[in-house]
Amino acid sequence: MASSNYSYEYFNVTFPSEYVAQVEIDRPKKLNAFIDQMWINIGHIFRQLSVDPDVRVVILTAAGDRAFTAGLDVQAASESGALSDRSATDPARKALKLRRHIQEFQDDISAIEKCEKPVIAVLHGVSYGLAIDMTTCADIRLCTKDVRFSVKEVDVGLAADIGTLTRLPKAQLPMSFIKDVCLSAREFYAEEALKVGFVSAVYETKAVALEKALGMAKLIASKGPVAVQTTKEVINYSRDHSTLDGLNYIKIMNAAALQTKDVEDAIMSGLQKRKPRFAKL
Amino acid sequence: MASSNYSYEYFNVTFPSEYVAQVEIDRPKKLNAFIDQMWINIGHIFRQLSVDPDVRVVILTAAGDRAFTAGLDVQAASESGALSDRSATDPARKALKLRRHIQEFQDDISAIEKCEKPVIAVLHGVSYGLAIDMTTCADIRLCTKDVRFSVKEVDVGLAADIGTLTRLPKAQLPMSFIKDVCLSAREFYAEEALKVGFVSAVYETKAVALEKALGMAKLIASKGPVAVQTTKEVINYSRDHSTLDGLNYIKIMNAAALQTKDVEDAIMSGLQKRKPRFAKL
Amino acid sequence: MASSNYSYEYFNVTFPSEYVAQVEIDRPKKLNAFIDQMWINIGHIFRQLSVDPDVRVVILTAAGDRAFTAGLDVQAASESGALSDRSATDPARKALKLRRHIQEFQDDISAIEKCEKPVIAVLHGVSYGLAIDMTTCADIRLCTKDVRFSVKEVDVGLAADIGTLTRLPKAQLPMSFIKDVCLSAREFYAEEALKVGFVSAVYETKAVALEKALGMAKLIASKGPVAVQTTKEVINYSRDHSTLDGLNYIKIMNAAALQTKDVEDAIMSGLQKRKPRFAKL
Amino acid sequence: MASSNYSYEYFNVTFPSEYVAQVEIDRPKKLNAFIDQMWINIGHIFRQLSVDPDVRVVILTAAGDRAFTAGLDVQAASESGALSDRSATDPARKALKLRRHIQEFQDDISAIEKCEKPVIAVLHGVSYGLAIDMTTCADIRLCTKDVRFSVKEVDVGLAADIGTLTRLPKAQLPMSFIKDVCLSAREFYAEEALKVGFVSAVYETKAVALEKALGMAKLIASKGPVAVQTTKEVINYSRDHSTLDGLNYIKIMNAAALQTKDVEDAIMSGLQKRKPRFAKL
Amino acid sequence: MASSNYSYEYFNVTFPSEYVAQVEIDRPKKLNAFIDQMWINIGHIFRQLSVDPDVRVVILTAAGDRAFTAGLDVQAASESGALSDRSATDPARKALKLRRHIQEFQDDISAIEKCEKPVIAVLHGVSYGLAIDMTTCADIRLCTKDVRFSVKEVDVGLAADIGTLTRLPKAQLPMSFIKDVCLSAREFYAEEALKVGFVSAVYETKAVALEKALGMAKLIASKGPVAVQTTKEVINYSRDHSTLDGLNYIKIMNAAALQTKDVEDAIMSGLQKRKPRFAKL
Amino acid sequence: MASSNYSYEYFNVTFPSEYVAQVEIDRPKKLNAFIDQMWINIGHIFRQLSVDPDVRVVILTAAGDRAFTAGLDVQAASESGALSDRSATDPARKALKLRRHIQEFQDDISAIEKCEKPVIAVLHGVSYGLAIDMTTCADIRLCTKDVRFSVKEVDVGLAADIGTLTRLPKAQLPMSFIKDVCLSAREFYAEEALKVGFVSAVYETKAVALEKALGMAKLIASKGPVAVQTTKEVINYSRDHSTLDGLNYIKIMNAAALQTKDVEDAIMSGLQKRKPRFAKL
Repeated sequence: MASSNYSYEYFNVTFPSEYVAQVEIDRPKKLNAFIDQMWINIGHIFRQLSVDPDVRVVILTAAGDRAFTAGLDVQAASESGALSDRSATDPARKALKLRRHIQEFQDDISAIEKCEKPVIAVLHGVSYGLAIDMTTCADIRLCTKDVRFSVKEVDVGLAADIGTLTRLPKAQLPMSFIKDVCLSAREFYAEEALKVGFVSAVYETKAVALEKALGMAKLIASKGPVAVQTTKEVINYSRDHSTLDGLNYIKIMNAAALQTKDVEDAIMSGLQKRKPRFAKL
Repeated sequence: MASSNYSYEYFNVTFPSEYVAQVEIDRPKKLNAFIDQMWINIGHIFRQLSVDPDVRVVILTAAGDRAFTAGLDVQAASESGALSDRSATDPARKALKLRRHIQEFQDDISAIEKCEKPVIAVLHGVSYGLAIDMTTCADIRLCTKDVRFSVKEVDVGLAADIGTLTRLPKAQLPMSFIKDVCLSAREFYAEEALKVGFVSAVYETKAVALEKALGMAKLIASKGPVAVQTTKEVINYSRDHSTLDGLNYIKIMNAAALQTKDVEDAIMSGLQKRKPRFAKL
Repeated sequence: MASSNYSYEYFNVTFPSEYVAQVEIDRPKKLNAFIDQMWINIGHIFRQLSVDPDVRVVILTAAGDRAFTAGLDVQAASESGALSDRSATDPARKALKLRRHIQEFQDDISAIEKCEKPVIAVLHGVSYGLAIDMTTCADIRLCTKDVRFSVKEVDVGLAADIGTLTRLPKAQLPMSFIKDVCLSAREFYAEEALKVGFVSAVYETKAVALEKALGMAKLIASKGPVAVQTTKEVINYSRDHSTLDGLNYIKIMNAAALQTKDVEDAIMSGLQKRKPRFAKL
Repeated sequence: MASSNYSYEYFNVTFPSEYVAQVEIDRPKKLNAFIDQMWINIGHIFRQLSVDPDVRVVILTAAGDRAFTAGLDVQAASESGALSDRSATDPARKALKLRRHIQEFQDDISAIEKCEKPVIAVLHGVSYGLAIDMTTCADIRLCTKDVRFSVKEVDVGLAADIGTLTRLPKAQLPMSFIKDVCLSAREFYAEEALKVGFVSAVYETKAVALEKALGMAKLIASKGPVAVQTTKEVINYSRDHSTLDGLNYIKIMNAAALQTKDVEDAIMSGLQKRKPRFAKL
Repeated sequence: MASSNYSYEYFNVTFPSEYVAQVEIDRPKKLNAFIDQMWINIGHIFRQLSVDPDVRVVILTAAGDRAFTAGLDVQAASESGALSDRSATDPARKALKLRRHIQEFQDDISAIEKCEKPVIAVLHGVSYGLAIDMTTCADIRLCTKDVRFSVKEVDVGLAADIGTLTRLPKAQLPMSFIKDVCLSAREFYAEEALKVGFVSAVYETKAVALEKALGMAKLIASKGPVAVQTTKEVINYSRDHSTLDGLNYIKIMNAAALQTKDVEDAIMSGLQKRKPRFAKL
Repeated sequence: MASSNYSYEYFNVTFPSEYVAQVEIDRPKKLNAFIDQMWINIGHIFRQLSVDPDVRVVILTAAGDRAFTAGLDVQAASESGALSDRSATDPARKALKLRRHIQEFQDDISAIEKCEKPVIAVLHGVSYGLAIDMTTCADIRLCTKDVRFSVKEVDVGLAADIGTLTRLPKAQLPMSFIKDVCLSAREFYAEEALKVGFVSAVYETKAVALEKALGMAKLIASKGPVAVQTTKEVINYSRDHSTLDGLNYIKIMNAAALQTKDVEDAIMSGLQKRKPRFAKL
């Protein structure tokens, strides 16, 4: 699919390899900080990728050397956004408006998690606030040596509400670490992120990290796409359900998924020592 | 608030810095082993701290060099407690009494977890049984190099029922490790505890560990208190609910919390390059 | 109990020490790959061990130097099993048959998890597919240096449906790691498995690993059996329920379990500095 | 708000009283059977009503004397819809497409349930299939004496997948009744529907039923809108969560909602024996 | 146990028959409306009854002819309570205080539900607001012909937060009815309450209703107390958990409860055609 | 399938119509009271029916005029069963044995609920204890005018542990009724059972009830079997899960089920005004 279908002011969507899409946040002069239009756009992009038959894996990265993202553009938000809305004076009515606003914001970021295809995030430099919200939606996280993570929100007097406080625990890291970084907003770096398992690997530079991510993406893209998407769906489901529910769910999903021709193709290819080619979804 | 309001025989409650409270278990001659009165007292203390407007963070430590606590004072328990009760001869009636007794004991220890303010535990020396029950209720765990942890209960023929078996899994450590130490009652030490994430950091001595804990407490106490308490509440909620429920919960909570003046103060202070001062809760 | 009661073509069940059973998968010429009969047998074996009063701990291992298991014997499965069934042409009817087939397969493997006694798995060499399904049912995982793990299923075009996708997250390893290995089917080795906590320890050789496992098994077998089984049950329950539910569950279980004579025996033995002997269950 | 903003081919949206909107399904020649465009439209309409400050209650009804709706227009669906799609031959790939299709369909119908404002459904005549899917999303159901209900789906060889099988149990009717009508597709009528509680009241004619619905809508619209919307949200939440979770949820919601000026206004009006006027949301 | 131990200004606690306690709300001049002290007292009373060995069943009723209770004494609440607190001006800080206040209020009312012994509520006359909160905590509800129920809260601009919105759905009444009465605050009467199942029976007068309640209480009190309390606990648990969890829970509870001598006594008494006498709990 | 495959001492399994099986409890001289062998047999029967391609609906009834069943044969149980086991003297060890025993008993009765095919229960005469356990596992309950229901267990000093306390609430009857009959063991009759929805219909005699049940069974058996079984499965799933989970589940199941030829057949038959014939499962 031509990238022209994915044309956005602050995002570059490219296709570095067959079945692999790459989404690059592109507002480097502002440390890739997010204005409202950007989170709306990222929602659109991932909803589109989710059903694009030419895409089997997505890489999420950001332009420039200095930052994956510094998070929400607080200055812009305080000038124009919901936080600065003065129209509702009754706290209960204001609460209602805030609920709707947060819901929309969450929905757009959650589109990354709901994307049917695996998402690999490559983090570098300043990776604050929204960086954590977005990449806890990704399936796999890689980073560079110079990364500087922070669950920044308490520093501006608010609790992170776009996903971090819910999804960081679901990333299954030690709770003592999660509470530490979320309650203090302190920075943490590549080594600690690797030790606790927030990232799966650390690379010397962004270039190397992207290359490794692409290799990983190609590998995943070479597998049966029915199997890959079922695998993602079932792991996410299992995270939020009991063991028994999880076992039942994969049973129901595979009752259809096992009827794919991919299994036959994979086994035949294995016997014939050649690489299988799987049909588009 | 004067510490005189927190006067207990086996606990010292002090205020080493503005908004920081420190609770010290103080029965060092008996390795800080717990008698009934002590777990009742610790429940009282943490319920009080939870609503004390002068407290924003709590440190939990223990007196003496040898032990955080050796756990339940088994000798005392076998002489006077529920275990030694011979009044009920019918096993079903005895079961009912035991349920009530365990419930009360659990409630007092759970007060540490329910405390609205973050709790940092500093463990040293012998840290057996109840030490794990209590500190899995804390938000952040630090320890000294000489710490000796043990989920000791199976050694006296019983399963840990004051929280360890439930909260150790919720601390999100590898299950293979959790099963290993809970089923065997073997000791484990600082290095392993750090590797699996049971503690966030290990320090040379108790003095250093307490100093680091105090630094961490001051840092957290300097953040907007609405944001900090909301953060703790939402992480705990998310641990026990699905991703969707967690996202909804922070949305509902922040609909009120975002209306705090703290956000405005924090942003203004940021622009003016000064430290914000947040009003009491 | 004589091992003659546990007589199966592809499994050796032995009793290397009092109260310790050892189950050895024995089809080394085929890398211990599983044919239908084998997973049915393993279900039987673990249901039997679960209620055998002479067993308090189980070790799960495999014969030969090369593999714990290469997983499902795909060739055999494609010739005779449910996957190759051509009798149902309607996809909905085929789905129904597949559901029943998967359910039976899952039930037999789940017998390992449901076994009331702790299970220690010792993995070595090729440990693919079903190796992960089975050992995520175990309580404690140990491995050798030469182990080669792979969640192999996507390589043959299908999603793992016998438990891995559900139980690997429940093993509480970092999600980024879990997604990585499940989506790519890449191999991972002892060091990474230890780092993320999939295994608790790595040993030089299978012989050493088995010796260590036996030591661990003996230690656990020496504890009060009521306490040990309650501990296993409550941790498993807590994994799938909220903190409050977990606390309530141990309360209800211990209302009966605390009435065991084992507690008295353990305390008496402690005072008399001798090893307690606990009655059979 | 002018109804011109709600202009759809097969729906009439009117405002019969202040703060009350009425949505009328309008394809009476085809017994108000649904084609694809219609369920997409109904999703739009209810998402709009949900945030329309001029709307506090919604009535859902249908044009003509013969039917609320005969359900999905099966003929149209078999010609153009997802069911007739022949492009995917692999059952696993077809399953994926069907999942996406069902999801979209469900999302549009769920918009009725997610509407922040109470929805009162008035059913008459033929009320088959989708009639149940849609009105189990409503808060209150009324009907006429001539109504003919049927969970029709098994009659065309499929299980109802747009909500009935999930939401009919959540309507808290006796299970024996629910199973009976869902498994047999038999018709049931006003009297039985009233007896089991599927509808709250039965009226002689559609005109009377609509008049009663309007009276009910006016009554609800006269109450504090913060209170009404919070009430709807909390009941829906409680239906899907434990008692403890429900109590906690209303606590968190009311912490903001109780700060509304409506409470003061209501109490003042009560003392002054006049009707309160509540500000728009 | 002498009723002197249950001495409260606005409650009469009596013991009309062996093992039966009766709690009477006693502020009839104010239609038994609740001031703060009263809900704190009712919490105390039910916690005490819960563990009182002389009590096996509790009847909840109210003094005077006109009302069970008119609900919260709104005038008193607006003068002194949390709603009128003007000390916190920041909406977020006020929200925190409100959360604590609601929590305490909920806890005291929930004591009725948590009481280990069955509670039978007898409602008459005006039964508004708190009347529903309290009696949805009871196990069995009876009423008189003159009863006037109302979920009154939206009439004063607020959503019911002491339990009604959560527990009325858990009473398993048709949702269409629940939404109707909660959203409109309309009154409903004995006949409708009986039809939907909110009450189990309607009696001509309060005197008759109390007599019937006493008969029911005596009957329950004559059964094995272990069995009765286990029954209550398991039904409440099952309401909030899955079928599988419920089955497991009764299994665990009965593992202790079945060891009661009551079973033997009951069977022996049956054979000897005499009434069994069960030992105190 | 010949009924000879279903040969049991105390059960008659017949096939009164194509695709309809009838299971008759047959120990009328003892009021169809259950001895151990009988609940083991009923488990076998329903597991067999569940996968029998010649069966689409099951009717459950009992021989003789006097009773559906009087429940457990208490005399037999007290002589030989788990309750009378004197081998374990330690209450904790006895609890373990009781847990296993209850589990097995529950599993066999749960086989009625797990049966993939709809089960219609026809109750008459004495229907005590196990009668409720078994028929709350059925999908639809019918009864005769002379039926006498009782949740009898508290009368013999124990709480019902084979399913009633969990499944009666899941039958979605008013809680006040459920508590009333479970706590008091009082009898209730056809009229009340119909009013609260425990049964869907009451018939004059057993003969008439069976005839009506057969008509209902034939009607269900004439529908697409994929649709019918999916419908049963999804309603049962929805009962125990949130609305969102339920919607997702039917989506996943129908992704396979909608690919059935039955839909095409049903639509074609509809157009051609003839009755469809659906292939066996």
